[in-house]
Amino acid sequence: MERKSFGRMQCPIARSLERVGEWWSILILRDALHGYTRFDQFQKSLGIAPNMLTRRLGALVKAGLLERRAYSWRPPRYEYVLTERGRDFRQVIVAMYAWGNKHFAPEGESVLLVNAKTGKAADPRLVDRITGRPLIHPEYRFAAGPAASERTRRKYTAYEADRDDADASPRDKRRKPGARS
Amino acid sequence: MERKSFGRMQCPIARSLERVGEWWSILILRDALHGYTRFDQFQKSLGIAPNMLTRRLGALVKAGLLERRAYSWRPPRYEYVLTERGRDFRQVIVAMYAWGNKHFAPEGESVLLVNAKTGKAADPRLVDRITGRPLIHPEYRFAAGPAASERTRRKYTAYEADRDDADASPRDKRRKPGARS
Repeated sequence: MERKSFGRMQCPIARSLERVGEWWSILILRDALHGYTRFDQFQKSLGIAPNMLTRRLGALVKAGLLERRAYSWRPPRYEYVLTERGRDFRQVIVAMYAWGNKHFAPEGESVLLVNAKTGKAADPRLVDRITGRPLIHPEYRFAAGPAASERTRRKYTAYEADRDDADASPRDKRRKPGARS
Repeated sequence: MERKSFGRMQCPIARSLERVGEWWSILILRDALHGYTRFDQFQKSLGIAPNMLTRRLGALVKAGLLERRAYSWRPPRYEYVLTERGRDFRQVIVAMYAWGNKHFAPEGESVLLVNAKTGKAADPRLVDRITGRPLIHPEYRFAAGPAASERTRRKYTAYEADRDDADASPRDKRRKPGARS
């Protein structure tokens, strides 16, 4: 009973969490992005109980990340193929991979994201597709968007106000946000 | 009892999941990245039960993502400040934000990542820090790294073999991986 539904929240992160649902789902998506499509492939890779795997695959189909397709009629057999929405999740997986490798691989990298032709490891970072600028703080920040509810708008105003307070401490007075824009 | 420990797995994604632990942790990190540091700020923002928040903050401190600091001695009061490891998680949050906005905001965006000076919304994508190339499939793929165990190595060899099978279908024969490298 730990979780409440995040689906009604406006935050896109909360909504994403609602859809991927459980850690298992993220590891299933990781394997699907590696090319796995069949129940037994996922099961062998993850060591997950069959009933749990059935449930998680069903949830991912329902959330529109996987599509269930028959690949044999006699006997009936199904495979689970990534949808566009599922394939787009790769960006989250790659970001997690980079963070995990940086902070939790003291013995060196066990997994690398490599260029398929050169074999050279990539060092992922997020940039703006249009300008190419790295999306770092404080140059880029979250703000209420056009469809924001009153509650969301108040929340982001509160974030701003708290930041202003913090930045108005003697050490930082010069850099109060908005002063130069 | 749904989860087993992912910490022993070599996969950096599994290791990341082990550390952020629960959905609540990701939402706490989101708020921390927005500038929140105090218990009552997190509680008000998330509507989370105090005992749950205490537990999740403790886990994030233990995992080295937050640092607990006294900001008042009488009465004793603590704040939770992001460490470098916690700040680096921003990349995962931004990737989730972009995916959530693209796929689960049918009414329009409620939250945007904007350039602080221009107010213009960013369209995040992952590129290689050195070459600037977008990290898309199949140009970039996961592979066993230098510290991979025999098990991890076998797993990635299996991924490769499955992909070779799939790519050897008539439609795709030309593009069999490795043929051109």
